Amino acid sequence: MLNNGTGKFIQMLDSTLRDGAQGEGISFSVNDRIEIVRALDEIGVSIIEAGNPASNPREMEFFERAAGLKLNNSKLSAFGSTRRKGISVEEDASCAMLLKAYTPCVSIVGKSRALHVEEVLQTTLEENLLMIEETCRFFKDNGKYVIFDAEHFFDGWSDGDGYAVECLKAAHRGGADCLTLCDTNGGSFPDFVGAVTSEVCGLFPESMIGVHTHNDSDMATACTLMAVKSGARHVQGTFIGFGERSGNASLTSIIPNLQIKSDYECIPQENLKNLTSSAIKIASIANVTLHKNVPFVGRSAFAHKAGMHADGVLKIRSSFEHIDPESVGNRRRFLLSEVTGRAAVLKKIQKLYPDFDRESPQVSELLDILKQKEYEGYQFEGADSSFELIVHRLVRKYKPFFDLISYKVLDELPYDNNHSATATIKLSVNGKVKIAASDGDGPVNALDTALREALEEFYPCLSELKLIDYKVRVMEPKDATAASVRVLITSTDGADIWTTVGVSQDVIEASWIALVDSIEYKLVNEIL
Amino acid sequence: MLNNGTGKFIQMLDSTLRDGAQGEGISFSVNDRIEIVRALDEIGVSIIEAGNPASNPREMEFFERAAGLKLNNSKLSAFGSTRRKGISVEEDASCAMLLKAYTPCVSIVGKSRALHVEEVLQTTLEENLLMIEETCRFFKDNGKYVIFDAEHFFDGWSDGDGYAVECLKAAHRGGADCLTLCDTNGGSFPDFVGAVTSEVCGLFPESMIGVHTHNDSDMATACTLMAVKSGARHVQGTFIGFGERSGNASLTSIIPNLQIKSDYECIPQENLKNLTSSAIKIASIANVTLHKNVPFVGRSAFAHKAGMHADGVLKIRSSFEHIDPESVGNRRRFLLSEVTGRAAVLKKIQKLYPDFDRESPQVSELLDILKQKEYEGYQFEGADSSFELIVHRLVRKYKPFFDLISYKVLDELPYDNNHSATATIKLSVNGKVKIAASDGDGPVNALDTALREALEEFYPCLSELKLIDYKVRVMEPKDATAASVRVLITSTDGADIWTTVGVSQDVIEASWIALVDSIEYKLVNEIL
Repeated sequence: MLNNGTGKFIQMLDSTLRDGAQGEGISFSVNDRIEIVRALDEIGVSIIEAGNPASNPREMEFFERAAGLKLNNSKLSAFGSTRRKGISVEEDASCAMLLKAYTPCVSIVGKSRALHVEEVLQTTLEENLLMIEETCRFFKDNGKYVIFDAEHFFDGWSDGDGYAVECLKAAHRGGADCLTLCDTNGGSFPDFVGAVTSEVCGLFPESMIGVHTHNDSDMATACTLMAVKSGARHVQGTFIGFGERSGNASLTSIIPNLQIKSDYECIPQENLKNLTSSAIKIASIANVTLHKNVPFVGRSAFAHKAGMHADGVLKIRSSFEHIDPESVGNRRRFLLSEVTGRAAVLKKIQKLYPDFDRESPQVSELLDILKQKEYEGYQFEGADSSFELIVHRLVRKYKPFFDLISYKVLDELPYDNNHSATATIKLSVNGKVKIAASDGDGPVNALDTALREALEEFYPCLSELKLIDYKVRVMEPKDATAASVRVLITSTDGADIWTTVGVSQDVIEASWIALVDSIEYKLVNEIL
Repeated sequence: MLNNGTGKFIQMLDSTLRDGAQGEGISFSVNDRIEIVRALDEIGVSIIEAGNPASNPREMEFFERAAGLKLNNSKLSAFGSTRRKGISVEEDASCAMLLKAYTPCVSIVGKSRALHVEEVLQTTLEENLLMIEETCRFFKDNGKYVIFDAEHFFDGWSDGDGYAVECLKAAHRGGADCLTLCDTNGGSFPDFVGAVTSEVCGLFPESMIGVHTHNDSDMATACTLMAVKSGARHVQGTFIGFGERSGNASLTSIIPNLQIKSDYECIPQENLKNLTSSAIKIASIANVTLHKNVPFVGRSAFAHKAGMHADGVLKIRSSFEHIDPESVGNRRRFLLSEVTGRAAVLKKIQKLYPDFDRESPQVSELLDILKQKEYEGYQFEGADSSFELIVHRLVRKYKPFFDLISYKVLDELPYDNNHSATATIKLSVNGKVKIAASDGDGPVNALDTALREALEEFYPCLSELKLIDYKVRVMEPKDATAASVRVLITSTDGADIWTTVGVSQDVIEASWIALVDSIEYKLVNEIL
């Protein structure tokens, strides 16, 4: 059953696959879209607005496949416009395709500002009202759950000519189940959105009122919240804020604000703790990086750096945390930096070795090592895994997995044979010497490939390892090309993701150090 | 004169260098900080909160240098806590350092929630009030402009015990010029922040009330705006939202919302059009990418995917744009039919060749070159000099100053003779072949030294050239070590400073391209 958006229930419509796909750099294959539908159903949004069947021929392939999915929580919706001017709905090819998209819901967008009707649609205000009413009725008569999206509603309202409300009335007459107020250009302020929503709810006491906002003014979340507080019970957004320009309202911000911090229900309560993993999953399907500072679900959203703040959080959680990170499946992190205190370091060690306490001699030793490393330019915030390796080495005193004898990297222009770089590496594993060589697209790529080639014979599990991110930061720019560089490498074996760090005046050596840590981290967790 | 925050004037305090530096992955060298102070002064924020002098010994070096800067619009502020419990302000070493930071303003943070006073500070409520009052008075008596930051103010207010207001009263008795209400954990909603601010303004009709918000609930901008609408006249944030966890309120969102869309003045009106370039500059100094979707100043903030929306925008600008992109120095982009602003490009050319006009054939040719370069990953925003060289080459068609025949760079571990890298280079100048070699601290340093050695015989003026900054950015992290990198090199000859850019999958080749541009720029300006 569709969450009916009454009382404390809020109907959440996710438009990642429709409005989200308008974002720069966002594009989805049919498979991506099926995977996203599955992820959204799993987290439990009410409605998945999955595309516009008339926009291009490949759309129908997706809708046919989507119709075969067994969904547990969500209903699919297809998106389209009101009929074109001067014809009947039955004659409109786009409406016909929308009907055939096999979805229980349809979203119908119609213009609700006189200016746009006259200038963009180039028709009369009366005809536009008929277009809205007849299109809604057509889909209602065909058994659909009809969501009417009143485009430019808030700008239309500001015009003061009453036409925006006339458009809602037309949709209402046509039988629309939900009247959604759209802040199409993202320019409205939250107090205004709240006030207008409240008036509209008064005008349509029997109807579900929805809200659709964009983030151009950096207030999409606030506008949505104010609308809900004023009576809206249907919310449109995209899961992690994808969308044209500055993006749409982000459901990962709206859901916890409404469900944890206010008294509404947007998704099944037991799914809240999957909010972060769902966000990571959708970002990864879309092949974009979820920005670390994203509220609630970003990697830094509960990361504390300052000594004072970290200390405060340890004493009173709410000092610097507005919610429990675990309630949305995220976690608290203490970033190590020169201002980090003993308490935060201890806490990190205890994650690995719970028996350690403040008095353990290794704690002081570790603090000394960290101080020295930071002096050299290391920074372990963002490179937890290199930090963990320092702890493991100190505590377990294990033998290195291999010893480097030497590497040589040659980089040249013009290219020799399509590759600019060649690396040779000589190392020993348990006394056995191994030499390997590789070319590559740049010196680090060549060295990375040669190293893996040398080691895979001894440690076959390394074949699962992939580098997924590589970052370089120059630290003391005043020395320019002789400055120290810090390299961060992020790796995955499919199950886990870890980041390691290396520092040197030589960018290749810094990369080497981070590469070696990345491999050692895998081996420590796999073999020791 | 300090913008006095009355009437429609809003005093903007930028804390990029203090609270912003708490962000994960953010760290500034002393030079970075000086550059950021200059950029903030140029855009015209009222107050620059530049750091906490007591937090670490290197801070004082910065404040000593900063005191020597001639600022046109901004006043510097140093940040610190109220005195410690049980001693006098005069005995407090941190307060002493704050006083010696040579800044006209100080920001004093004090706890304003009983829970934190008792549990974290572990002192009495009365002592905390004395700590606040006496610390404010001490700095007032020493001629400072005193901003009191009431930490945890909104949570304290919600406790309903009146203590939060007592803390403001203590600061007011101590003579504080501004009482700032802090939403320290970022958990408050904008309607609540507005209502509380309004009450506080009523309680302190003679005082300037400030607001300081964090983005944990994704509503930092909205909370700030509601506070201003309710009477706050001092706003704290960080220029592009740097900060712990999900960041601080972002001034690039707040300023245009207040100054373009409401009737306030935050920075000199004529500087609004530099908002985007200032944001790019500060991101580039911090070596982070300004996320493309950032409202107002992001690269996608006014980007329209082709089709209905692009069409709508062409018919009625406001259809999908809440403000004119140029009012904040950004630009409209149509994504599928990319038209790099001909007008903007022409403007840049005319700087070098004032006779050029719209009809000059080179304008189209240049647009094509730029399009191709941008496709390869070039970005000329922070690298004007490479852009100028493209123009010069096209217009003057001069002969290259030298031709590279080949270079080879060898990088090895263990080091050979203290240096990890050796470069040999073979080039010709006017038909004369020259070979040079050098070792260096890393491959780029070796190549740089060898290149200069090869050329100085022909171009003695190159001996004045020094590289002062070197930045590396990896562009498509998904390909990890085989991703493209963009290298920015900043050079000086003592009189001029210029930045050049190179892009390649190979970090050494990318550096080479930027190095060659750097040298060519010097020679073009010296010899041609």
